[in-house]
Amino acid sequence: MPEQSLIFPADEFRNRLRRFQSVMATQGVAALLLTGAADIFYVTGFLTRFWESPARPWFVIVPASGQPVAVIPSIGAELMGRTWITDIRTWDAPDPEDDGVRLLTDTLRDLAGDDGAIGLPMGLETHLRMPLGDFSELTRRLGVARFVDATDIVHRVREVKSEAEIDRIRTICAIADRAFARVPEIAAPEEPLNRVFREFQMLLLQEGADWVSYLAGAAGPGGYGDVISPADGRPLQAGDVLMLDTGAVRDGYFCDFDRNFAIGPANDAAKRAHAALFAATETALAQLRPGMLASDLHRILTGAIRAQGATPGGGRLGHGLGVTLTEWPSVTAKDHTVLREGMVLTLEPGVVITPGRFMVHEENIVLREDGPELLSARTPPDLPVIPV
Amino acid sequence: MPEQSLIFPADEFRNRLRRFQSVMATQGVAALLLTGAADIFYVTGFLTRFWESPARPWFVIVPASGQPVAVIPSIGAELMGRTWITDIRTWDAPDPEDDGVRLLTDTLRDLAGDDGAIGLPMGLETHLRMPLGDFSELTRRLGVARFVDATDIVHRVREVKSEAEIDRIRTICAIADRAFARVPEIAAPEEPLNRVFREFQMLLLQEGADWVSYLAGAAGPGGYGDVISPADGRPLQAGDVLMLDTGAVRDGYFCDFDRNFAIGPANDAAKRAHAALFAATETALAQLRPGMLASDLHRILTGAIRAQGATPGGGRLGHGLGVTLTEWPSVTAKDHTVLREGMVLTLEPGVVITPGRFMVHEENIVLREDGPELLSARTPPDLPVIPV
Repeated sequence: MPEQSLIFPADEFRNRLRRFQSVMATQGVAALLLTGAADIFYVTGFLTRFWESPARPWFVIVPASGQPVAVIPSIGAELMGRTWITDIRTWDAPDPEDDGVRLLTDTLRDLAGDDGAIGLPMGLETHLRMPLGDFSELTRRLGVARFVDATDIVHRVREVKSEAEIDRIRTICAIADRAFARVPEIAAPEEPLNRVFREFQMLLLQEGADWVSYLAGAAGPGGYGDVISPADGRPLQAGDVLMLDTGAVRDGYFCDFDRNFAIGPANDAAKRAHAALFAATETALAQLRPGMLASDLHRILTGAIRAQGATPGGGRLGHGLGVTLTEWPSVTAKDHTVLREGMVLTLEPGVVITPGRFMVHEENIVLREDGPELLSARTPPDLPVIPV
Repeated sequence: MPEQSLIFPADEFRNRLRRFQSVMATQGVAALLLTGAADIFYVTGFLTRFWESPARPWFVIVPASGQPVAVIPSIGAELMGRTWITDIRTWDAPDPEDDGVRLLTDTLRDLAGDDGAIGLPMGLETHLRMPLGDFSELTRRLGVARFVDATDIVHRVREVKSEAEIDRIRTICAIADRAFARVPEIAAPEEPLNRVFREFQMLLLQEGADWVSYLAGAAGPGGYGDVISPADGRPLQAGDVLMLDTGAVRDGYFCDFDRNFAIGPANDAAKRAHAALFAATETALAQLRPGMLASDLHRILTGAIRAQGATPGGGRLGHGLGVTLTEWPSVTAKDHTVLREGMVLTLEPGVVITPGRFMVHEENIVLREDGPELLSARTPPDLPVIPV
């Protein structure tokens, strides 16, 4: 008998199922069709890096009552069999003649009947992870009108984390904290940025990350211009500000925060930028409460940056975090999602130093009844300096 | 002026564009709409790990003539500006009111006119990386009938690699070869498998991988039962067969091969399995030629395994490789894709040792006029033993 997946006890998944089915009931959804790695991991505990291969679709269906059903390639049957899921239906994928569409059709008929509504995430931050042609065929067989948008169902359930989930995120945050504390071991003048990136990933692994799904960053004199690039071979120089931003993973849960370092003494503009970012985050940590909207948090952060005499910059100023690197909501002026107790969020204010050169600063928190609890160790108030 | 992305000279991308436009012309496609990381990297050279965030859609349109156009979140403008792409249209994403749909609609009208066919990959191994609801809105604005399946266009162009691409894949294969040669440094009895996984990823980074997108593997007495699981904390034991299978990345290109190791002397069944796999790969290396079908290669491999008195096992017995971990075709009995000169493929035969316990073996090759050229160093004929 293979060992059961031990990421969480089955009760954790039963609670998730109950929460899904409770929201589904209020919306009259007979079955929820999930196709993505994060949603499927969330419902089943099925954790694998095999999603990296686009070759095969995977499906999990949450019925209005009863247990979830997995409709998956046979190559995944053993691993799915070690989760709490017991109804596992397989086909030999990839099959150019029928890559699971008939089996999925039959399963949806089993679970949603001939006319029950089938919920499918179709909104912001969702993707359908199956070929569009196969989805068209599925809608032809079942009736396109039966498919309804389930983005809200998935968002409202997944966005509030259990204590078990918060513990996982705290663990990976602590791993990244330890790796960031060791950056002075790997960053120095003449060290090429791409070598720093490689070595920082090694530090994360040494400190206990299972893998490193995301690393971005930048370095430039007194600030940087872009935060999504992979590293180039430019050597670090005295006067640079180095930023590393990582989404490392442990047991399927992500951290997502960054740290800035001055290579040698920082100039005044960089010091002021870091101080403004620190102060803006302090303000948000002090003021944020459940019941506020994501747009309220945006207003708090931009107001606090301006109060420091600095100019807000960057994209959104934070977002959800959990089983993917970024989750809804987005901390923007347009996102009016209610922030609830148990949400895990990033606070990610940015300031413009000079046109095209800025600084960004990120912490991870869980929102409690009385305000934010930090999951990342707080960055120091003064921009850390790596002596040269 | 920011540095131009140096992964390839612009001529490489101009050639790719010419090849796309030539196939598009034969199919009467006015514009090709690409939404996925691999297709967009292939056309533009835009390389970032930011795809890990599902928050924002990204679009590149290849018109029937003229240059590709990028329709992307403003956060990516600087990085896209360092590629060879000059027409870059941006919006501030994520935007819950309109996440690029109006801009994409207008751009498609610019490039494909009021009635030109818009090609979109919809077939096997493709996904639409934008919210399904936004795609529905796009088809409402432009007419659903204008969207035609472009899977074949993308597959036929991307599957034949340039010498510059083959060099990149050879480089990352050599990095993985060096890391595999060092496995005896990290694998020993009592060493937990999840620590071996962490340390193997560190070896890959030390040897020059930019990042490690995929690592799977397994260990068990005389063979293993499943090859897609993440590692658990079970300690290695004498008599185990350890398998590590990696998709490491350098400059956006993947390797994908595995190696098997006996922890202490192997039993006869494991030795025979490894010998059968080695022999089957030798047969494929000797017989494979351009013009054969993927299904012919499947027949060659299964026949060679049976000729050794062994039982073929596992899923498909190989696949394409390049800017994703796995690409079409699939080496199965049902895939009749013509194998062409310049294709990079994995040869991945598996054998069943006992029910539920098997061994799999993988090499990476490029198909030349006169047969396969190895990109991974050949595994030794005898199962390597890590002394205990």
